Amino acid sequence: MDAVNLDAMLARFAEHWSPKTIAQINDYDVRIVKVQGEFTWHKHTDTDEFFLVLNGQLTIQMRDRDVVLEPRELFVVPRGAEHCPRADNETALLLVEPSSVVNTGDVGGELTAEAERLA
Amino acid sequence: MDAVNLDAMLARFAEHWSPKTIAQINDYDVRIVKVQGEFTWHKHTDTDEFFLVLNGQLTIQMRDRDVVLEPRELFVVPRGAEHCPRADNETALLLVEPSSVVNTGDVGGELTAEAERLA
Repeated sequence: MDAVNLDAMLARFAEHWSPKTIAQINDYDVRIVKVQGEFTWHKHTDTDEFFLVLNGQLTIQMRDRDVVLEPRELFVVPRGAEHCPRADNETALLLVEPSSVVNTGDVGGELTAEAERLA
Repeated sequence: MDAVNLDAMLARFAEHWSPKTIAQINDYDVRIVKVQGEFTWHKHTDTDEFFLVLNGQLTIQMRDRDVVLEPRELFVVPRGAEHCPRADNETALLLVEPSSVVNTGDVGGELTAEAERLA
């Protein structure tokens, strides 16, 4: 692989809530995603999920509290914890999670998206 | 855990080549490290290693080429690949790797540092 520039990768797509894989670490994927609006409540029973805000602002709603992330802030949603991401304005995230993870976790539905590989 | 601010975490230490764990994703650690100068040639036989530059500029020397990373650029050193990071000026990195990884990989020596937990 070559060096991967996050901004060049972000420039390659526009759609929301559809993660793109830009690197792999063993059996984990490094993904970027653009989000806006509210996602769907879901959980990942078998894995933690890492969020780092690149641009914008993300609120990770959880059942007991909200976690608000600005650029250069990160959070790990623990396995099994229900969460629902929300962004009032377009926001770009970096995710790290096992390659097998699907964005909607245990709930499925129309927002389910397989991660496309950009690099 | 609470939201983790990368710049607040970077402000908490000054030493070079001594990774700090700031989050965990299953059995992987998210670490930050400040580097300056040249590290030591080493490899990790059993795992890939993820580098993201936060500030500064990193050159990852490999046996067949150099990979130069600016802020918001990332690279994964493949398992088994000998590499030697170098930074002419102080540079801050985010690393993702299995929690068991030691910074000097297979070579050990005086630069070996256990990752301290900051969060």
